[in-house]
Amino acid sequence: MTATIIDGKAVARAIHEEVRREAEELRARGTTPGLAVVLVGADPASVSYVTAKQKACEEDRIESFGHTLPADTSQEALLSLLAELRSDERVDGILVQLPLPRHLDEGTVLAAVPIEKDVDGFHAENLGKLGLREADARFAPCTPAGVIELLKRTDVQIEGANAVVLGRSKIVGLPAAMLLLRENATVTICHSRTRNLAEEIRRADILVAAIGRPHFVTADMVKDGAVVIDVGVNRVEDASKKRGFRLVGDCDFDAIREKARAITPVPGGVGPMTIAMLMKNTVRAARMRAELA
Amino acid sequence: MTATIIDGKAVARAIHEEVRREAEELRARGTTPGLAVVLVGADPASVSYVTAKQKACEEDRIESFGHTLPADTSQEALLSLLAELRSDERVDGILVQLPLPRHLDEGTVLAAVPIEKDVDGFHAENLGKLGLREADARFAPCTPAGVIELLKRTDVQIEGANAVVLGRSKIVGLPAAMLLLRENATVTICHSRTRNLAEEIRRADILVAAIGRPHFVTADMVKDGAVVIDVGVNRVEDASKKRGFRLVGDCDFDAIREKARAITPVPGGVGPMTIAMLMKNTVRAARMRAELA
Repeated sequence: MTATIIDGKAVARAIHEEVRREAEELRARGTTPGLAVVLVGADPASVSYVTAKQKACEEDRIESFGHTLPADTSQEALLSLLAELRSDERVDGILVQLPLPRHLDEGTVLAAVPIEKDVDGFHAENLGKLGLREADARFAPCTPAGVIELLKRTDVQIEGANAVVLGRSKIVGLPAAMLLLRENATVTICHSRTRNLAEEIRRADILVAAIGRPHFVTADMVKDGAVVIDVGVNRVEDASKKRGFRLVGDCDFDAIREKARAITPVPGGVGPMTIAMLMKNTVRAARMRAELA
Repeated sequence: MTATIIDGKAVARAIHEEVRREAEELRARGTTPGLAVVLVGADPASVSYVTAKQKACEEDRIESFGHTLPADTSQEALLSLLAELRSDERVDGILVQLPLPRHLDEGTVLAAVPIEKDVDGFHAENLGKLGLREADARFAPCTPAGVIELLKRTDVQIEGANAVVLGRSKIVGLPAAMLLLRENATVTICHSRTRNLAEEIRRADILVAAIGRPHFVTADMVKDGAVVIDVGVNRVEDASKKRGFRLVGDCDFDAIREKARAITPVPGGVGPMTIAMLMKNTVRAARMRAELA
């Protein structure tokens, strides 16, 4: 079997299209979707993410409110900005770019983003509600939401499938497991303490790899016909590249594609989905505001 | 192999002892642990649970504040009682006996119990925090907390074990999965849509059965040497009994005990643990109050 390569760029583009249409509709009805993007400091990776998010807003017809604070901003000042954004009616979603400088307490800061504007979906309450399949769950965290979207748009049947998630992080692993459970998969959560990872992986109809170890998952670990979603983004040295490295996923793409039914490449798989889902969450927040108004 | 029978009554007794000692210490330091028990209506099963909880309070030196409201109590009246209890400093824990009469909205009512007094551990936020292994997670839901306690006091190594949870309910299955994950087990969550339950169950080093189907798990599904925690409580007709039925678990106890390393009986396994863990959560809440004071 040669795997279908899941084209995350194309799927992300389709979602951006849908978002833009919806944003236009909302604007026509008097509600302009708005996203506040808060950056503390000038970490180059963070700056580039923030820039990409603001560009996506522009393209998707979402108004973006950029707030860049100096690296030595006090927690008080940041919380006071968040308090303003909380009550600003033009702001449907608030995104605080992570990681924060060390002197700021991430938990306290994220808790200051109200759940209605938490378009990153990081609230523990929201995670619990997703797992419990409660109707009032809000926003699914963007990367795992992108994983589910890729599966659905690749016509993968999630219900009843054995889904194995490698990693249990707040941003990817655990919420991915909750979302797969909500879609009625049988879900196994593996992590650094799992005894026989290879054996667990081999059981997966759907594998979601998010452990941050380059090419950790090899072809012999993958069941014939499995669907492999690779969330890993790892730098490996590559002298042939100008910048001296290339990006690879957690899975050995070339070998696995001969065995799997479908697989996401890195880059170009899950990566582009994160911002697309952020935009989707933001228009959803705006729609909720419009319906309440 | 003949299984160790895990004596939940004995473990629960030991916990009640520990709680009582701790309650005495707290009282000596001027903090009397208090639990408010709210019952709406007079459902016989609920009345008997509430009575048992209040009796446990008395034995464990926790002050109980009973509030019994008529079955036709309005949501407003119930919420107003909860608001009082919320600010009542003598009340460390608030327990609302479920199920509530149909005209009351369970979600709204439970959300009115503040997380600091949610000794039942039902808050979605708390569930999320448990799964994320966050340091400020509060109270683990009592029945799954009892499952973990039984495993620990039977010297079962949870870390690295394959733990399979049957059921994904709010009260047992999902929180049990989160707690097992917190203890570093590799966790698989199975449910009604799981395709091959028998095969999943066979992989379990630790099996937690909470699906409410009498003797669903048979010996051939259980791995040699597994540890089986049976949360099910099912009535089956039994003409030889005065009341016409007997209680059995989700697992075929007699056959499995020849194969497992350890197993909980029904009744007398997980059952007695629920109230013991409720008491334990309540003194923990009181201790937190004392430390803050």
